[in-house]
Amino acid sequence: MRILIGIDGGGTKTRTLAVTQDGTILADLTTAGSNINHHGWAGVEESLFALFEQVRTHVPSYANVASLCLGFAGIDREPDRVRMEQWTAAQWPGAQVSVVHDARIALEAGLPPDAQNRAGIVLIAGTGSVAYGRNAAGLEARVGGWGYLLGDEGSGYDLGRRAITAVLRAYDGRDPQTLLSTLVLSAYGVQEPTELLPIVYGESTSRGQVAKLARLVIEAAAAGDSVAQGLLDSGAGELAALVVALLKKMNFTARHVPVVLAGGLFSTGSPLIELLASRLPDSVELRPGQPPVFGALRLAREGR
Amino acid sequence: MRILIGIDGGGTKTRTLAVTQDGTILADLTTAGSNINHHGWAGVEESLFALFEQVRTHVPSYANVASLCLGFAGIDREPDRVRMEQWTAAQWPGAQVSVVHDARIALEAGLPPDAQNRAGIVLIAGTGSVAYGRNAAGLEARVGGWGYLLGDEGSGYDLGRRAITAVLRAYDGRDPQTLLSTLVLSAYGVQEPTELLPIVYGESTSRGQVAKLARLVIEAAAAGDSVAQGLLDSGAGELAALVVALLKKMNFTARHVPVVLAGGLFSTGSPLIELLASRLPDSVELRPGQPPVFGALRLAREGR
Repeated sequence: MRILIGIDGGGTKTRTLAVTQDGTILADLTTAGSNINHHGWAGVEESLFALFEQVRTHVPSYANVASLCLGFAGIDREPDRVRMEQWTAAQWPGAQVSVVHDARIALEAGLPPDAQNRAGIVLIAGTGSVAYGRNAAGLEARVGGWGYLLGDEGSGYDLGRRAITAVLRAYDGRDPQTLLSTLVLSAYGVQEPTELLPIVYGESTSRGQVAKLARLVIEAAAAGDSVAQGLLDSGAGELAALVVALLKKMNFTARHVPVVLAGGLFSTGSPLIELLASRLPDSVELRPGQPPVFGALRLAREGR
Repeated sequence: MRILIGIDGGGTKTRTLAVTQDGTILADLTTAGSNINHHGWAGVEESLFALFEQVRTHVPSYANVASLCLGFAGIDREPDRVRMEQWTAAQWPGAQVSVVHDARIALEAGLPPDAQNRAGIVLIAGTGSVAYGRNAAGLEARVGGWGYLLGDEGSGYDLGRRAITAVLRAYDGRDPQTLLSTLVLSAYGVQEPTELLPIVYGESTSRGQVAKLARLVIEAAAAGDSVAQGLLDSGAGELAALVVALLKKMNFTARHVPVVLAGGLFSTGSPLIELLASRLPDSVELRPGQPPVFGALRLAREGR
């Protein structure tokens, strides 16, 4: 029995799937994050070592682990990729091991089975935002993803931060009143806009928590609030610009370019998807993304 | 001989002037910052204590320190103001002491001598931005100044950050090429836009350093770069919006409302001043600000 293992190593959690060649799931594990930028090499190797021990308990002793693919957030430089690949290969003698960055597995997880040479684009909008593409020649490119101060436009954090700013600007009388004031103050359990400052600037508030306010923007927009609608519109415009820049950069000539939508901001029913579609050329085919770990599994199956 | 003392206590430095009643300067000292939010009460009291010792060495023993006014960044809450006032009064028995926030002394430093009841607006654009006004009835209000994540629109940091973002967006192919790329990369001594990320997100880069890039925006705009011109335009629009909101909020009815321009972004010859003027009503009279410490001195002289 040949076993395939796919791993999605993110900043906050790592998901691992071990399946048989015929698709039976032997293990579906979620463990701590494994981004080397957050946890360091020693930390990541330690948690992967523990994870591998755990995986082995789910794999029959007579089985042969044929192939692993690991997609990591934080693995952007080639030396890091090679180092992680060699370290992992040493833990699984005889198995084929590939390490890729996380956008690659997110793309794979949403590509149609017949995608020409695995070419396409993935647009990730969670706490941050980034677009990554791969053309039929295997050329890769990335647009955006420059982080919360310089980029991540249209991301959950960006929308959440703009929602708070809109509340403060309305309070100042610089911008129109907005339903977001009630929603944001109530989400944080405070009475006055000025009470938002120690929350946002306080060390105990993560960017992920600010990103959760994005759902309030969607809620207020649905209720007809024009400030919130403006935020969603401009967010969708920023996300579309990532894809458009990538289409141009990679000289995509395919008649249908699959664009996989990944990340929490695209959860089912999000009005962002429709706003996005209206800003993209007809050649683009928006597709929902499966969890990225399935992309890792697909790459493991193909032995690359 | 009666002595007046004015102090401008900022985040990075504290400037102190001690003058005789007839205007002779006895001491002009610049010492460490004294923002309680940055340095804590103990730290600020310690450095003020040392400062006062130093001031005393410049004041003849037969002189009478009649009045002190201290303007502090970071003193926004009334209990903090009173606490600082009482602590300072205890250091200067017999003197009249007033503690105000830093925008108040910046306003005083630029008001015309005949300003009706000391009414007017000060627009501060340095690393951050904020507008503060006081009407003829003594009512005060503030607009903006919500910090680098939520506000400070049109400030030096805002312009500098947007300059870096423009470089990254041009690199991505999302926005037009700009002269800012050459200027910003060269300012940091790097070759590639991606090298800007560890600089901006690194702990050793202060917001003040990013704010210094604002001069590159002015330089590129002067050279005809349309991206930089767009950044200046929108910055001026944001600064004007602070003043306009304040005019409305305070129901300013005076025919001429003095608006004092303070902070490094308004240094002589800045194109921002003209851009700003074109966006403000004719009733507004833009005025250059003297260093805020002179405003503290004026309040000390008037005994308030």
